[in-house]
Amino acid sequence: MKIRLFTPGPVEIPPRVLRALAQVPPHHRTEDFRTRLKRVTEKLKNVHGTAGEVFLLSASGTGAMEAAVVNLVRPGEKSLVIGGGKFGERWARILEAYGLPHEMLAVEWGASVVPREVDALLERDPAITTVFATHSETSTGALHDIRAIASAARENKRRIVVDGVTSIGVHPLPQDEWGIDAVVCGSQKGLMTPPGIATLSLAPWAADAIEGERSPRFYFDLRRARKSAPLGETAFTPPVSLILALEEGLDLIAEEGLAAVHQRHEQVALAMRTGATDLGFRLFPAHPSNAVTALQAPDGIEAPMIVKRLRDVHGMVVAGGQDQLKGKILRVGHMGDYDLADVYAMVGALAECVQALSPSGARS
Amino acid sequence: MKIRLFTPGPVEIPPRVLRALAQVPPHHRTEDFRTRLKRVTEKLKNVHGTAGEVFLLSASGTGAMEAAVVNLVRPGEKSLVIGGGKFGERWARILEAYGLPHEMLAVEWGASVVPREVDALLERDPAITTVFATHSETSTGALHDIRAIASAARENKRRIVVDGVTSIGVHPLPQDEWGIDAVVCGSQKGLMTPPGIATLSLAPWAADAIEGERSPRFYFDLRRARKSAPLGETAFTPPVSLILALEEGLDLIAEEGLAAVHQRHEQVALAMRTGATDLGFRLFPAHPSNAVTALQAPDGIEAPMIVKRLRDVHGMVVAGGQDQLKGKILRVGHMGDYDLADVYAMVGALAECVQALSPSGARS
Repeated sequence: MKIRLFTPGPVEIPPRVLRALAQVPPHHRTEDFRTRLKRVTEKLKNVHGTAGEVFLLSASGTGAMEAAVVNLVRPGEKSLVIGGGKFGERWARILEAYGLPHEMLAVEWGASVVPREVDALLERDPAITTVFATHSETSTGALHDIRAIASAARENKRRIVVDGVTSIGVHPLPQDEWGIDAVVCGSQKGLMTPPGIATLSLAPWAADAIEGERSPRFYFDLRRARKSAPLGETAFTPPVSLILALEEGLDLIAEEGLAAVHQRHEQVALAMRTGATDLGFRLFPAHPSNAVTALQAPDGIEAPMIVKRLRDVHGMVVAGGQDQLKGKILRVGHMGDYDLADVYAMVGALAECVQALSPSGARS
Repeated sequence: MKIRLFTPGPVEIPPRVLRALAQVPPHHRTEDFRTRLKRVTEKLKNVHGTAGEVFLLSASGTGAMEAAVVNLVRPGEKSLVIGGGKFGERWARILEAYGLPHEMLAVEWGASVVPREVDALLERDPAITTVFATHSETSTGALHDIRAIASAARENKRRIVVDGVTSIGVHPLPQDEWGIDAVVCGSQKGLMTPPGIATLSLAPWAADAIEGERSPRFYFDLRRARKSAPLGETAFTPPVSLILALEEGLDLIAEEGLAAVHQRHEQVALAMRTGATDLGFRLFPAHPSNAVTALQAPDGIEAPMIVKRLRDVHGMVVAGGQDQLKGKILRVGHMGDYDLADVYAMVGALAECVQALSPSGARS
């Protein structure tokens, strides 16, 4: 059976990226690799939208989230976490693990935060030093207005850290222009590379933010990463093969053009939403992300039945809901190397599933 | 130029492992991948020599070292660190980062610890709860007698944690038989896989050792890993492609037989040591590891000149010394897919280097 991934990451890997993986990898302490790592870092600055620093970690995206927490927040400092999904709330779990005080701005799952509520909260509570937010909430398919949230943080002179894991390479996220101190990402989403690399970018003005007394940090200590980066090195052995692959993913983006990549994702997501709602699916989030389309199944059909049939009959892998959304939605990923034809194939398969699974369809 | 890696990791990757990397990776939340992850975990138990648990982390080996520290040591508990090289001392750096008290058993770089000193120290200081040791010290090429050290720890009823990064798949390290609580490893050494996977094994009797109050832990919290493992899942997105590759590496070991793999490494290392000392090189460590041969250059030649000429003239990549050994030694790695013919090639190239670089050789 021909397998097609429509998962919200890891995503389909373009053949060119796969071929890069099969190369004999150079040793990481060679000029060849040092030059390459510097080049990959420059290319990452382009997609992260910063003239500052981008650090590459051998970790999943959560590792970069933890790195942001342990490097940016002083012990005792209070943070504001914007909820609204599994990943927004993960910031709070990490802060808790380190005993760092924080307030959660509760957002209903599927909704997007109202930026003026962030502004009001920051005005009211001067103890908050850092805002942790999510751009594209992978668990609900919702997009948050990071531009406005960052603006609220800046106006109130607070730091803002953004989870860009499923937005980089999908939605515009110009870090420096929008005034975001730090952005984290993972390789296996818009960057079209297998999982295993996490990135964290620091804006030029936030360079000092990682210095001084912090929570315990060693593997994720960005001061070590900073010492190694100008040499084309990482503090600890880098995931060499994945870095070769990541460069191909970044080149694919550069060749198409970052703006064109964003535009394609918008087009693809729009087609996906239109096709699915025409079939009787309901869009779960109020403000949908272009990375993943979260859908409630048409009346009379359970979302997990669609997930199962897509896989069993059509070889198409999508994700179900997580945590409180388990069993209630399906999530169709289309970030990275996806085009309209991919969406047509998916919509066709969804139509077949509805036909086969709906109580009326079965009789017709 | 034909490039040959003789580095102390990452090592040469066998073609079969490279081919596995180029596969279209399955999504990690599929039955296909869950079954595979459980299978890989079982195969890892074999090389780790334990009937307990093996956790797979998306990280470098240092990540697994940090995981051992934050999961096994209670705040305030005192540890004993066995020094003798950059990696032995890394245990102390990690404990320091977490504010955990420890004593360093200083060992001259290149020497191996005398096990009865460990025994004496543990008898003298009942406050020590955990011993952190290194089996094969990659920075000096020295092998420590882990069997005897573990026995001293057990007799004194202390926990022992071993860095097996360059010993698993090279030297016998039967964890359960030798009474070792936890062993850490990385994918890019004896397991012949590119870097990006770290493993940590817990002996059956040490299962409870990760429960309770510990240092702050989130990404490396093994309680999360433990909840996911029986499902064939990891707490956070696993490095899927690298796991496909790791399975090939583990299969290569299983097909040759673990005992035969150890024997081959012994043979290869012996040939390397004999060949090099016959050329006037001096073995740096007193008790050499079979993973890496650390050498001082013959009189009148600087070690870095050998490293440079091996690379420039012969395409052979070896490592120099690190930290206090910078400029003083060269380190030839031969762990993983190396055989006698590889060593003959290396010894031939070393002979050419000595001929070309020695003051007398140049005149003759």
